[in-house]
Amino acid sequence: MSFTRTWTVRFSDTDPFGIAHYPRMIDVIHETSDMFMEEIGWPYWELHEEHELGLPLVSMDFDFHGQIEGGDVVEIELDATVGESSVQFDYRAIHDGEVVFSGTEHRVCVPINGDGGVSVPDDLRDALESV
Amino acid sequence: MSFTRTWTVRFSDTDPFGIAHYPRMIDVIHETSDMFMEEIGWPYWELHEEHELGLPLVSMDFDFHGQIEGGDVVEIELDATVGESSVQFDYRAIHDGEVVFSGTEHRVCVPINGDGGVSVPDDLRDALESV
Amino acid sequence: MSFTRTWTVRFSDTDPFGIAHYPRMIDVIHETSDMFMEEIGWPYWELHEEHELGLPLVSMDFDFHGQIEGGDVVEIELDATVGESSVQFDYRAIHDGEVVFSGTEHRVCVPINGDGGVSVPDDLRDALESV
Amino acid sequence: MSFTRTWTVRFSDTDPFGIAHYPRMIDVIHETSDMFMEEIGWPYWELHEEHELGLPLVSMDFDFHGQIEGGDVVEIELDATVGESSVQFDYRAIHDGEVVFSGTEHRVCVPINGDGGVSVPDDLRDALESV
Repeated sequence: MSFTRTWTVRFSDTDPFGIAHYPRMIDVIHETSDMFMEEIGWPYWELHEEHELGLPLVSMDFDFHGQIEGGDVVEIELDATVGESSVQFDYRAIHDGEVVFSGTEHRVCVPINGDGGVSVPDDLRDALESV
Repeated sequence: MSFTRTWTVRFSDTDPFGIAHYPRMIDVIHETSDMFMEEIGWPYWELHEEHELGLPLVSMDFDFHGQIEGGDVVEIELDATVGESSVQFDYRAIHDGEVVFSGTEHRVCVPINGDGGVSVPDDLRDALESV
Repeated sequence: MSFTRTWTVRFSDTDPFGIAHYPRMIDVIHETSDMFMEEIGWPYWELHEEHELGLPLVSMDFDFHGQIEGGDVVEIELDATVGESSVQFDYRAIHDGEVVFSGTEHRVCVPINGDGGVSVPDDLRDALESV
Repeated sequence: MSFTRTWTVRFSDTDPFGIAHYPRMIDVIHETSDMFMEEIGWPYWELHEEHELGLPLVSMDFDFHGQIEGGDVVEIELDATVGESSVQFDYRAIHDGEVVFSGTEHRVCVPINGDGGVSVPDDLRDALESV
């Protein structure tokens, strides 16, 4: 199962060839993770104050398979895999039945005012794995 | 009557005080006009090729009345007023019953490869005034 | 006298007609005020902690006179005018001897944890008027 | 040898913890490649019209090693490696003597109106390898 959101490519996302600028796709990927965290009840904007945790990004890798244009409707899927003290988000963006970009973010669970990783709390783990 | 869309302020929109950065609000205003034009059947990404027209911005003025935070749900209303060769978009953004920002964009209707304004075509006028 | 910075329009700022997207110009205006505040020794990122002050935006109005393209070199001037508890930033962006956009931001000086405006401190006033 | 540009993290790049938002770092990476291409005389905004070529991104992978704050001055280095019909850009961002993020973009050389890759022209190859 996956979390899915729909993104319509906007005029202001597009370049002189009419296709989406790469940095705009990265914005949308980040927004998708934000929507996912809100959906499971652990929004980024509450992680710190409510849970004394952060989930900073440690790496990302993305492949761009196709080009998308203003008005294109793109379904972006996110799947979360939870490790001991880390979380992996896998993304697939689909337009007209084709994967147009896909990739992975690795995040680590850290306490506030701390450097190293800590175990992902059980309730966060359950929430992440529920979708 | 108005066109309305809902915007949730995202973590990546917020500043060190937890409130939305001003440039992010401007992005969202622009995105709102894009969604409106799509809704009435004249999306920005078709104006040029389908209609040989552009609607460049000539001025904008905005007032910021209140601060919004990550997770805040904001309703943004857009009303269009059509002049002879110009279009005015009025925006109001409402959160928790309060106007948090509002303002106006003035746009002019220009032919492709032309400098001066032209009359807003009747079908575009009808579409703009239909909402 | 004015503070001036140079902005080169980047490919990733440009739209399907090869001209700069409006929201990108607003980003650059905001970045210009940030560079100005750093130049006078009161960077935004120190206002809160070092000075217990904020300078939130209350209104902005901008006119777009001309179009700029990828690679265009634009000089952006900023002049500050200081009121009792407010600051006005006037911007002029010049390319090839022509003003391509211009406008004004009004900001108010507020204490942290406070709502109303306070007098602009003398040392901030001197710094703002020094350029 | 490398191309290097300096980036100052701006207030509007920073998040509720005062550190740079990830999407803003990606914007800056993209801007760095744009500045590099301009430096070697092959700016992105001329590739299409002057050279009938494009250099679309096919993949990117980045690691984030440290956090940077508003006002931090970051040196971003770019090294280009040229393949038969592809180009690899390697980035290293350094603040206070530490690598704060690094990564690689893979781009392919394509003709306009064409799908597959073509050989990187000799003069572009020479320019890319000159830095």
